[in-house]
Amino acid sequence: MTEQDRRQPHEQLDSELSLLARRSRWMWITLAREVEEGLEPAAYGLLATLSDADDDVRGGDLAEKFGLDKSTVSRQIAQMESLGLLKRVPDPQDGRARLVRITEEGRARVRRLREQRGRWLEGALRDWPNADVRQLVELLKRLNSSLETPER
Amino acid sequence: MTEQDRRQPHEQLDSELSLLARRSRWMWITLAREVEEGLEPAAYGLLATLSDADDDVRGGDLAEKFGLDKSTVSRQIAQMESLGLLKRVPDPQDGRARLVRITEEGRARVRRLREQRGRWLEGALRDWPNADVRQLVELLKRLNSSLETPER
Repeated sequence: MTEQDRRQPHEQLDSELSLLARRSRWMWITLAREVEEGLEPAAYGLLATLSDADDDVRGGDLAEKFGLDKSTVSRQIAQMESLGLLKRVPDPQDGRARLVRITEEGRARVRRLREQRGRWLEGALRDWPNADVRQLVELLKRLNSSLETPER
Repeated sequence: MTEQDRRQPHEQLDSELSLLARRSRWMWITLAREVEEGLEPAAYGLLATLSDADDDVRGGDLAEKFGLDKSTVSRQIAQMESLGLLKRVPDPQDGRARLVRITEEGRARVRRLREQRGRWLEGALRDWPNADVRQLVELLKRLNSSLETPER
């Protein structure tokens, strides 16, 4: 029995989830660098969130969601605006404020990145039996559901 | 058969991994806010990396690793330095350059955050049979191993 196996299952899970987070971050950043120069790879997280949002979004809400300072988010928004990936529009609730809206070019960029991620994942799982992938999907669904309303 | 089920297993996996990444980010940011005020929650990712590193680290390497602009990382490093979580030391290879080194207080902060994350995960998985957790751990280990050297 290795040191690893002696730990509680949820401690092992914690380790594997941390490792997965690092691998995913590395993959996402690598792909973002390939998609195009000129945008801080970390900013694609914001862009993907805007792409999934039904409405225009306040910059402050993005900062809150990503645990970033407003200054960081402002800079990334300005960078994406200058690249034509998003634009700022007036807030109908507050004439002085502005909301962020993704452009078609921004959506296309997110789509391209996600397609590449899909191909990357498909390549990585080439040798996996479908049944094992399905089982992992089922367990991850349950994990995501359990993580939604944690009892603390 | 739902729309979800008709997709290829690896597309479903991609969705579940994205959702997991969002849940994990939200959890990490929430815990970081609880641990202490004064530090941009996103900066804890850098701090955790420093805590795991065997050696002192160049700020530029951190920026590269996280897909962040050097200016973002410089600001976060300055913030953590002023909080006593890390310090800058001379680079023995290059007299003009400086490396980043985590302090004991910084390590303690990462440890506290990870302990809280462990408790959070344990709470979320309270109703899971141990066998299911173990199965998920096994599949995640294989996934992490497959993601390490993707064939693209």
